[in-house]
Parts: sequence; C-alpha cells; structure tokens
Amino acid sequence: MKRKDLIVEKEIEIRFSEVDSMNIVWHGSYMQYFEDAREEFGRKYKLGYQDIYNNGFYAPLVDISFQYKQPIFYGEKVKVIIKYVYKESSKIVFEYIIKDSEGNIRTTGISTQVFLDMDYKLLWYKPEYYTDWQNKTLVYD
Amino acid sequence: MKRKDLIVEKEIEIRFSEVDSMNIVWHGSYMQYFEDAREEFGRKYKLGYQDIYNNGFYAPLVDISFQYKQPIFYGEKVKVIIKYVYKESSKIVFEYIIKDSEGNIRTTGISTQVFLDMDYKLLWYKPEYYTDWQNKTLVYD
Amino acid sequence: MKRKDLIVEKEIEIRFSEVDSMNIVWHGSYMQYFEDAREEFGRKYKLGYQDIYNNGFYAPLVDISFQYKQPIFYGEKVKVIIKYVYKESSKIVFEYIIKDSEGNIRTTGISTQVFLDMDYKLLWYKPEYYTDWQNKTLVYD
Amino acid sequence: MKRKDLIVEKEIEIRFSEVDSMNIVWHGSYMQYFEDAREEFGRKYKLGYQDIYNNGFYAPLVDISFQYKQPIFYGEKVKVIIKYVYKESSKIVFEYIIKDSEGNIRTTGISTQVFLDMDYKLLWYKPEYYTDWQNKTLVYD
Repeated sequence: MKRKDLIVEKEIEIRFSEVDSMNIVWHGSYMQYFEDAREEFGRKYKLGYQDIYNNGFYAPLVDISFQYKQPIFYGEKVKVIIKYVYKESSKIVFEYIIKDSEGNIRTTGISTQVFLDMDYKLLWYKPEYYTDWQNKTLVYD
Repeated sequence: MKRKDLIVEKEIEIRFSEVDSMNIVWHGSYMQYFEDAREEFGRKYKLGYQDIYNNGFYAPLVDISFQYKQPIFYGEKVKVIIKYVYKESSKIVFEYIIKDSEGNIRTTGISTQVFLDMDYKLLWYKPEYYTDWQNKTLVYD
Repeated sequence: MKRKDLIVEKEIEIRFSEVDSMNIVWHGSYMQYFEDAREEFGRKYKLGYQDIYNNGFYAPLVDISFQYKQPIFYGEKVKVIIKYVYKESSKIVFEYIIKDSEGNIRTTGISTQVFLDMDYKLLWYKPEYYTDWQNKTLVYD
Repeated sequence: MKRKDLIVEKEIEIRFSEVDSMNIVWHGSYMQYFEDAREEFGRKYKLGYQDIYNNGFYAPLVDISFQYKQPIFYGEKVKVIIKYVYKESSKIVFEYIIKDSEGNIRTTGISTQVFLDMDYKLLWYKPEYYTDWQNKTLVYD
C-alpha cells in the first residue's frame, strides 16, 4: 500500500528573547520551533494535542533528538518542514528540517509520541481513533 | 490589630538561557523569579497554587508591575525578597525586591492575585478558607 | 504640534507550552506577547533592538505593568495592539491592549525603555538619533 | 590510561510554569534541566560557557537527545545526574539521567558540544586549552 506524504511548512520568526549571549538562538528554543511545526501540522490534519485529548488520550513526547548544523541568528527568517512518518506501532513520529531562506539546512530532528489514557497509562495497542485517522488521512482513494 | 510581617527570601541562580544578547538578564525572566519567590512563600506558608487549588480555587495574577533599577548579569547571585501585603478585599498581594550580594536593589515589583472558582468565575467576597489562613498565619497569639 | 498616532497590531497564536495547568495562558507569557508586538512595531517603524543597537545604544525595559482582565485559553486567536506614546524625556513608552476575536479586552499594559550607551551607562538626554527618528516618523509633513 | 569519572548531581525544583495542561512537565523544560546540570558541572569543574569563552571559544550544542521514561509532575523533587564522557575528538559529551526521590529513572539524555572560535568557525582540532583541562581534570596523579 502506498501512503501519502504529509508535509507541513511553518515559518518561524526568531524572537529577541530566544537569542543567547553568543548572539545565536539558544538551543532550547528549537524544542519550541519543532512544537510550533507540530501544532501547525495538528491544525491542518486534525492531530493536535486538543484533537487527541478530545478522543480520550494524551500524546506526550517520549523521544526527541536534534542535530544543529548551523547556528541561527536574531532577525533571520527560517522555516520548519515537518513530515509525518508512518509506523506500524502505536506511535506518532515526525521528522523535522529547519531551512533558511536560501534553502540551507540549519537543524534536523525527529520526535516520537505515544498514547496515554486519561489515567496516564501507556497504550500498547494503537487506539482505534488513530487507526481511523491514518486510514482517512494517509491512504489514497 | 497588629499583624505579622511575612517575608521570605529566595536565592536565584541566573541561567545562561535567561541572558539576552545584551549580556543581561532578559526582562521577561523576572516574571519567573517573582514566581519562584511566590512559590517559595507558598511552600513555607501554605499559600501555593496547589494549596489554593486543594481548597477549591484558582488564584491567577491580575496585576503585576516591575521597576528595573540595575541590570543583572550572567553568573551573578541575587535574591528575591517577597513580602505579603494584607488587604481587606479578596486579594493576594505581594511586594518584591531583588537585591544583589552587596545589598543593592536591582528590581522591585508588586503583584495581585484574585480568587476564581473552578468555573473560572471571579469571587467578589473573600473565601472562608482564605480568611482562616489569614487569621491563623498573620495574627499574633 | 500634532503628532501621528503610531499603532501596530500583532496576531498571537497561543502555544501549547504557554498554557499552564489551569488550562489558561501563564501570566509570564504576556511579557513575550508584548515583546512580539514591540518587535513588530520595531520592524515597521525602525525602532527595534537591532536598529537601536546599530545607532550605538541599548534600550532595556525599566518599567512594565500588566492588568489581566480575562484569561486566555489554548487555541484562542488574540491580537496585541501596541501604541507608541510620545514623551519629552529620553524614554520609549508603549501602551498595549490584547483583544480577542470579538473585540473584548483581555489584557492591558504599559512599558518604558531607556537608553544605555555601550558601557551600560544611562543616557539622561535624548540621543540625537532618537530625536531624528521622532521628527521623521511622528511629525506630519 | 584510566580516567576519572566526573559526575555531578543537580536538584531540580519543578516550577509551576513548567507544567502543561496535562499537569505534567512540558517536554521542552528538560532542555533547561539538562542545561542546569551542565552549568552546575561547569561551575564545579571549570567547564562552563564563561570558562570556555574566557579561553577564546564558544561551545554550542550540536546534538542532543532525550528519552522520557515517566512523566514528572508539579511539586516533585527530582535530580539530574550528569556524567562527562571522554572523547578523543574535539567534542564535549555529557550523559544525563533524571531520577526521582525513590531512585526511579524518569528521563535520560545525551548532548554533544563542539568548539567554535570567536568568528563562529568550527574547530576541527582539539583546542590546547581543552586538552590541558582534560589532562588536569580527568587523569589520576
């Protein structure tokens, strides 16, 4: 079965408060940029924290990694390209690339979320809601 | 009636991420320092967010102001001195002074919190729980 | 002399990370929203941190106050309306209003910045650069 | 050659502002906790941002990863255990474990820093200063 590639681009404006005394974006701010992209994706494809919560689950991050290729400076315009990665298991996986206005890669990353029920218990199986979402959103007609 | 002065001191370690590209603490970080002091006060005198919540209320900030006297630099040790200010009305008011290790005042501020019930409705009267707290905590035997 | 009113509007997307366990925006995040508006103003009217720095000065905040009228919830769209307030003295003063999509006022505030030279010394007089900016930007032809 | 294990423990107080609407610590806050531990290590063993800067270099993060085992709740006391990992190459590598008061592992992670000169150029060789630090700090007498 062939699945659609779901990709969303999110423009990021570097805030003054996100730059450190080296004059570059503090590495911790990228967590926020990745989340901004994830929320943009969530709004577009109905897979945000709120959508998931409305279906009875939390979806916290359990694994995240970053590779910083080039620093980002105050005043720069960059964008985060977020791509949904299909997994058989009960996980939500995204890949991220931050590119500058000339197309250079500044940062890459990957994140994994799992599903918890409202008592914070881990779901080992894929929630029906999520399978439905995958079938409806990823599969070609 | 004479009331006790409740004062708590909270040492603050300036974090690298809190310093901006001017090499001084970003002004927004002071919100956090004031809250750190408020939480320390809350732990000591049982007036933290959690205590208030356990009694059936939220106590969000509705008014806050800062006056920055001298910038604070990375690596400095400062402390926040927080003082409870008694009010007749249904409010929680604190005054703040940030001092450096030589006793110089770097920042001052004042904050006001009100009580909301669990439906986020404002309480115009003082909750019995809070009157009890005041009687028990502020009044000399 | 009549001066132009300089007003800029900045749309704010509430981030998941800015909401606290009361499900409302943490009060400290408003510092950031006000700064976002100030930076938008700075980009439009050439009065940003970078513009000021390029002219040989820092312009840190020395006074800021907030009045929270109504909490803001995750997922809401609000905008910050920032207005430049003319002062005779060597200060940059802004007023802020945060409004929701129905025009209700959620938050108000005011901030004051002063000028420091590159040695962090306070300027008691108005820098020529700033007078020029005011003459060029605020005055009707 | 046998090298000393350098390990530092840093107690973390969970701040109200670090908890999200799921009532658990927002994953992005861990970046800060890891940095808090790194700064504590830096203060103890003279390998902080400031020490490195005073020797003529920046040492930004280029790679970081987190594995979240169990969520952390508001009010909990946890500690970050940070361990220096020796590498032949021109890198600073740390491993992190966050444990709760009962010794359970809540989070693990690893970070890598490289050296840049003051023009933000990557150093491919190990700075003499860093070799000296390693010889002085890691090697048994």
